[in-house]
Amino acid sequence: MNDYLSGLKEGRLKLHSLEKEMPPKDAVAVRRAFIEMETGKKLDKIGDFTINIDRAAEKNCENMIGAVQVPVGIAGKLKVNGEYADDEFYIPLATTEGALVASINRGCKAITLAGGADVRIQRDGMTRAPVFAAKNVVQATEAARWIEENITLLKEIAETTTSHGKLLDIRCFVTGTNLHARIEFFTGDAMGMNMVTIASEKVAAKIQEETGVVLVALSGNMCTDKKPSAINVILGRGKTVVAGVFLPDDLIKSTFKTDSKTMAEVNMKKNLVGSARAVSLGFNSHAANVIAAVFLACGQDPAHVVEGSNTITTVEQAEGGVYVSVTLPSLQVGTVGGGTGLDTQREALNLLGCAGGGETSGANSRKFAEIIAAAVLAGELSLIGALGAGHLARAHKQLGR
Amino acid sequence: MNDYLSGLKEGRLKLHSLEKEMPPKDAVAVRRAFIEMETGKKLDKIGDFTINIDRAAEKNCENMIGAVQVPVGIAGKLKVNGEYADDEFYIPLATTEGALVASINRGCKAITLAGGADVRIQRDGMTRAPVFAAKNVVQATEAARWIEENITLLKEIAETTTSHGKLLDIRCFVTGTNLHARIEFFTGDAMGMNMVTIASEKVAAKIQEETGVVLVALSGNMCTDKKPSAINVILGRGKTVVAGVFLPDDLIKSTFKTDSKTMAEVNMKKNLVGSARAVSLGFNSHAANVIAAVFLACGQDPAHVVEGSNTITTVEQAEGGVYVSVTLPSLQVGTVGGGTGLDTQREALNLLGCAGGGETSGANSRKFAEIIAAAVLAGELSLIGALGAGHLARAHKQLGR
Amino acid sequence: MNDYLSGLKEGRLKLHSLEKEMPPKDAVAVRRAFIEMETGKKLDKIGDFTINIDRAAEKNCENMIGAVQVPVGIAGKLKVNGEYADDEFYIPLATTEGALVASINRGCKAITLAGGADVRIQRDGMTRAPVFAAKNVVQATEAARWIEENITLLKEIAETTTSHGKLLDIRCFVTGTNLHARIEFFTGDAMGMNMVTIASEKVAAKIQEETGVVLVALSGNMCTDKKPSAINVILGRGKTVVAGVFLPDDLIKSTFKTDSKTMAEVNMKKNLVGSARAVSLGFNSHAANVIAAVFLACGQDPAHVVEGSNTITTVEQAEGGVYVSVTLPSLQVGTVGGGTGLDTQREALNLLGCAGGGETSGANSRKFAEIIAAAVLAGELSLIGALGAGHLARAHKQLGR
Amino acid sequence: MNDYLSGLKEGRLKLHSLEKEMPPKDAVAVRRAFIEMETGKKLDKIGDFTINIDRAAEKNCENMIGAVQVPVGIAGKLKVNGEYADDEFYIPLATTEGALVASINRGCKAITLAGGADVRIQRDGMTRAPVFAAKNVVQATEAARWIEENITLLKEIAETTTSHGKLLDIRCFVTGTNLHARIEFFTGDAMGMNMVTIASEKVAAKIQEETGVVLVALSGNMCTDKKPSAINVILGRGKTVVAGVFLPDDLIKSTFKTDSKTMAEVNMKKNLVGSARAVSLGFNSHAANVIAAVFLACGQDPAHVVEGSNTITTVEQAEGGVYVSVTLPSLQVGTVGGGTGLDTQREALNLLGCAGGGETSGANSRKFAEIIAAAVLAGELSLIGALGAGHLARAHKQLGR
Repeated sequence: MNDYLSGLKEGRLKLHSLEKEMPPKDAVAVRRAFIEMETGKKLDKIGDFTINIDRAAEKNCENMIGAVQVPVGIAGKLKVNGEYADDEFYIPLATTEGALVASINRGCKAITLAGGADVRIQRDGMTRAPVFAAKNVVQATEAARWIEENITLLKEIAETTTSHGKLLDIRCFVTGTNLHARIEFFTGDAMGMNMVTIASEKVAAKIQEETGVVLVALSGNMCTDKKPSAINVILGRGKTVVAGVFLPDDLIKSTFKTDSKTMAEVNMKKNLVGSARAVSLGFNSHAANVIAAVFLACGQDPAHVVEGSNTITTVEQAEGGVYVSVTLPSLQVGTVGGGTGLDTQREALNLLGCAGGGETSGANSRKFAEIIAAAVLAGELSLIGALGAGHLARAHKQLGR
Repeated sequence: MNDYLSGLKEGRLKLHSLEKEMPPKDAVAVRRAFIEMETGKKLDKIGDFTINIDRAAEKNCENMIGAVQVPVGIAGKLKVNGEYADDEFYIPLATTEGALVASINRGCKAITLAGGADVRIQRDGMTRAPVFAAKNVVQATEAARWIEENITLLKEIAETTTSHGKLLDIRCFVTGTNLHARIEFFTGDAMGMNMVTIASEKVAAKIQEETGVVLVALSGNMCTDKKPSAINVILGRGKTVVAGVFLPDDLIKSTFKTDSKTMAEVNMKKNLVGSARAVSLGFNSHAANVIAAVFLACGQDPAHVVEGSNTITTVEQAEGGVYVSVTLPSLQVGTVGGGTGLDTQREALNLLGCAGGGETSGANSRKFAEIIAAAVLAGELSLIGALGAGHLARAHKQLGR
Repeated sequence: MNDYLSGLKEGRLKLHSLEKEMPPKDAVAVRRAFIEMETGKKLDKIGDFTINIDRAAEKNCENMIGAVQVPVGIAGKLKVNGEYADDEFYIPLATTEGALVASINRGCKAITLAGGADVRIQRDGMTRAPVFAAKNVVQATEAARWIEENITLLKEIAETTTSHGKLLDIRCFVTGTNLHARIEFFTGDAMGMNMVTIASEKVAAKIQEETGVVLVALSGNMCTDKKPSAINVILGRGKTVVAGVFLPDDLIKSTFKTDSKTMAEVNMKKNLVGSARAVSLGFNSHAANVIAAVFLACGQDPAHVVEGSNTITTVEQAEGGVYVSVTLPSLQVGTVGGGTGLDTQREALNLLGCAGGGETSGANSRKFAEIIAAAVLAGELSLIGALGAGHLARAHKQLGR
Repeated sequence: MNDYLSGLKEGRLKLHSLEKEMPPKDAVAVRRAFIEMETGKKLDKIGDFTINIDRAAEKNCENMIGAVQVPVGIAGKLKVNGEYADDEFYIPLATTEGALVASINRGCKAITLAGGADVRIQRDGMTRAPVFAAKNVVQATEAARWIEENITLLKEIAETTTSHGKLLDIRCFVTGTNLHARIEFFTGDAMGMNMVTIASEKVAAKIQEETGVVLVALSGNMCTDKKPSAINVILGRGKTVVAGVFLPDDLIKSTFKTDSKTMAEVNMKKNLVGSARAVSLGFNSHAANVIAAVFLACGQDPAHVVEGSNTITTVEQAEGGVYVSVTLPSLQVGTVGGGTGLDTQREALNLLGCAGGGETSGANSRKFAEIIAAAVLAGELSLIGALGAGHLARAHKQLGR
């Protein structure tokens, strides 16, 4: 150990290339010891992990020094009536925010008692949008027209790079001399960013070759990845999923201590009018909380919580109850690749019956997306119900009843 | 164990109240065993955690069954020239996205070689915006005027609920019969959501009492919490932080294999024009990636990555190099409370010298915010540099040089 | 005439400087004849105007060749219960869109029968936001801090340039090296853009002198002028006005052939959910139509219709009827200056009792703003009512089989 | 006259039905006299119009009392190198904002000297998006799927209502129980709103009949008409037009007294960064000014200035000069119908060679759109140039100490 530490100190060894000198587990230990030495800070707990990190150190995380542990709670059962998920589920939630699991759990209970959440996927496509520079607006326009006329050719080229992916569409946007080509793929059970990026590189090379525009960046931000963006709300990214449930009056009363009118009012004044006046892209209560907790438990990319937060929640009074829905325009999930292979995350996915590739390509990631949408619905109606209960109590008090 | 399991099965025991019957560790084990039994799925790895979860099971996560483990890598050293963080730091990053740590690390190296990132906090205030219902627009207006005339009174009331928090301002928005009052607090070293919520409840009660409007929801979405929102970009939420660095030409060449003109062009076409045309609230490359990785390592709320993704990145050519900046309008962090008390997360915060309360109230959370902004800057210039290098190579090829 | 035409043809005379050679009316005629000669197109009708254009040719329009005429219709009476407008009004509407006047007229009738529209101004301030370039984020931050500490000084400087205007506030935004200072003024009865621009120039010069940042543009787009913008929705620009009316069930039935529930449903599905999913800054039906028609009749700047279109409309079922409101965050109007001095436009303003300066400074422009808000309310409830009537008919048909 | 006035006073005559009793000109005079009598205000000037209003009183404006007159100035010549407009034009501009015509004129001069503005139309389609209510998310999804599978049938139905229009596409959006179907049409030389609305009514009836969802409103705000909206920026509405010009260094210096670097800097700091931080949908300087002035002169709907204001302006330094572009995602214009038939407006359109239907259907409205885009470009570079000149002067002064 000391040899290594002094090697690092003296620059003979490089911190980021320890894995070339020794097994991952040792490399992680040496690196951690070096950081401890350098900073005088203890990293015992981060070092005390139990997952197998051979693959992680190679594929998921450079310069690894250990692992962080996040508590996992369970909500459910949650009954989901989807086209891919049609069952009752226990939802694994990794979180440190007290009361979150309890709140989602209450929502799950209500949904399940009400017969389950109906869920439907509207669209399924991962996108990458390279940006090209043209000499002028004429060249940019001609390149865009060329692309639109050669989709079939570009599809063939794209699909040489993948056995799973299918190019669905390319949509061109000319903004001055900038040409953004938003390429959309079906990516099977993978979240698909890497797949799409590799394919887009080939496509972009062909476009550059044929039209003379120059590729400036493989991602030109019209994808849009990990930024809140209207294009994802409107055109979708990953899965576009809608979930809804009808709650009868008595269930609202027994579970949430409020009523349908109050829930509808809370939703309008908070999620619709409040978000409108704040100029928000998210018309919901706390969809991001639920998505973050499931994502973290199941090895998804936590930065994709950003797009998930674009959720729109509606609450409508109906004969004998209330209809509550959530619409997630851009939910990016995968059941293979990324963090899904880590020991603990894989178990969480497996708990949902979604680990690995689906029987038909994409079936598992769609099942997973449907479950998440139902869980978001649970989170929304629980919080709206709680706010409604408080409001109802205050309204009574205010009115002197 | 079997007794407990059959108790749960038969409904004599409740899944969520096992902690009342036995120590947390046992409750977690029983619950996990029950879920395994019910679903037929193994949860060994989730059960094999090493953090002390007595507090977690009580405060951070209901219905706990174990923990998920996420690899932590290290980037740095990163030199930060802030008002609170003025040192070199190793940045802990919890991620499963391959290449992310390496990329940030490269950015850290460039910044440190360039003399460090200048960082300044522009604003520091956590918000809560209850929504009230008025009978009509006249009552809503009168209530808003009453609030604006009674800020001092409401400040006193708010501050009876906290020894750390200070009410900074209340801004009223009347939208038809809806009155949203956005209450802004200094919350010391805590992220502050709970503090603000408790104080807002008292304030709201007083407003209701004095003006006759009825509180509908303690959060009326103009806060805005965990949704992408212009109000946070414009008025800020949590810390508003700006970081910048000047990179000389030779450093750009040696570290990033590109040049200042190309970096400026990539930023304009991708982060500015691309985001504009996508109607995005985020004018950056991948700020969310960096924020998510630090947040996860350091026990922050991952749903707050949403607001962090509102970052604006600028790259400007200057005499002899390029000036790169990032502006984070709404970075919500704390060094006490929430997930910061978990063993592994606390170590990560401690590595940055930010664990717990600061010498003066708020100094640690501001230090932490400054470090994150510098890390985001590292991530941005590394990715822009990489895109630029590719672009440069292609441009040369295309032009036949 | 022929001399002039040949002079123009040969370049001895300049098209834009004919007013230096002859009276405006003649200059306009010569210029028009020249354009007719050059293009072979007739401009008789444009030449056949009746307004006195001496002032117009000097102050309102360079290179004048005549005038365009737009039909003016009348809607009303409209009863307004404002703080500045408290009377019944006939609303002049210049438009070429068939059915618009009739529709607004119907809304006016309903409002007046219901006892009038309550209107309240929430905020009144015109803005200009110069942008400064700093060397780095530290200098930008220091300049922002200097401004915030020297508001009083800057207010004095600003007010040396105007006898009507009052500087209300300066809000600083640092984005990397960019410093935007949003300066807000009370501008009396003028719309105020010129007043604010002149004052801002002085303020900017002082900031530049004291802090070393360099003024790049007097308008840095955070004003925001004539672009749709969240900052105006949130912080307001010009007048922020809210209007509302309660319509009883029988009136809804007799005037609109629909009911309160249907109107609320139309508003939710169209103006709230539809706008949310389209990621719109305008949550209304056709506020821009009403604003454009009044603006055109009354000599306002038609490009300011853009900001007016940010209106939020709410419709809430209430005991025995429905409460409908409109919120106009950024309505920019004046009763002096600009196009208000033209003969026909002045008459239209005078018809509303708003021409020229108010008894107290600002009273007339506020009165005018209140009337417009009430007219927008009329337009909204008329269109929502019409949609509701259609929906109701269809719903009956659909369900009546 | 007195008979009529007393008839109106006593309610025997209705203000809005005078046209049934007498010729339009007389009806307008009687109505005006009545309003004068009722209000005691003079309307002489509004009554002193010269356009033939027989058609206007019937088709363009109910309850007409006269007309408002707006000065028209001329800018140009402006050389346009479009696919439909390929010539030099004098641009008619109706405005009361002093300096606007002069500013646009300067831009026209620069463009023409530089060889003209290249302009290309990217997309041409007018939209209407009815909203339907479904019982639940399953029914909404099924209806959306039915629509997507029956586009051909719906196209046939739509086209029975029009001899000019062609249905291009229908895009469905399910948001909870709400189904918005955005129907896109080619509408020839008409702006097309009426055409699309009539066709959409038929389409909507068929959808309702086949799927069981109920039409709530023919416009569900995802069109989006007359509201600022991301969907129009992204998917376009009316014409999506891009214009650009390369200005050589000497021309920048002689015309604008500035340089390419400064113009690029002004654009970045104002139009890109400023708009980003203000969370604007418009990344331009004053496109709305130019569009409003041409629209008013040429009989377009001034409320459509809202969508025009979504323009994105770019300025890029290039070898030996600067490339400036404007992108108008949603420019809604027509050369037949609406206000284009009024005497003065028709002359203005005719001056551009765009009055009435084109040789091939749509050619005139596209020509008109290309000219407007070039005029917007003129306005943008003139204002950016002016800001740049001021900035340059100040920068010299600041640095010249």
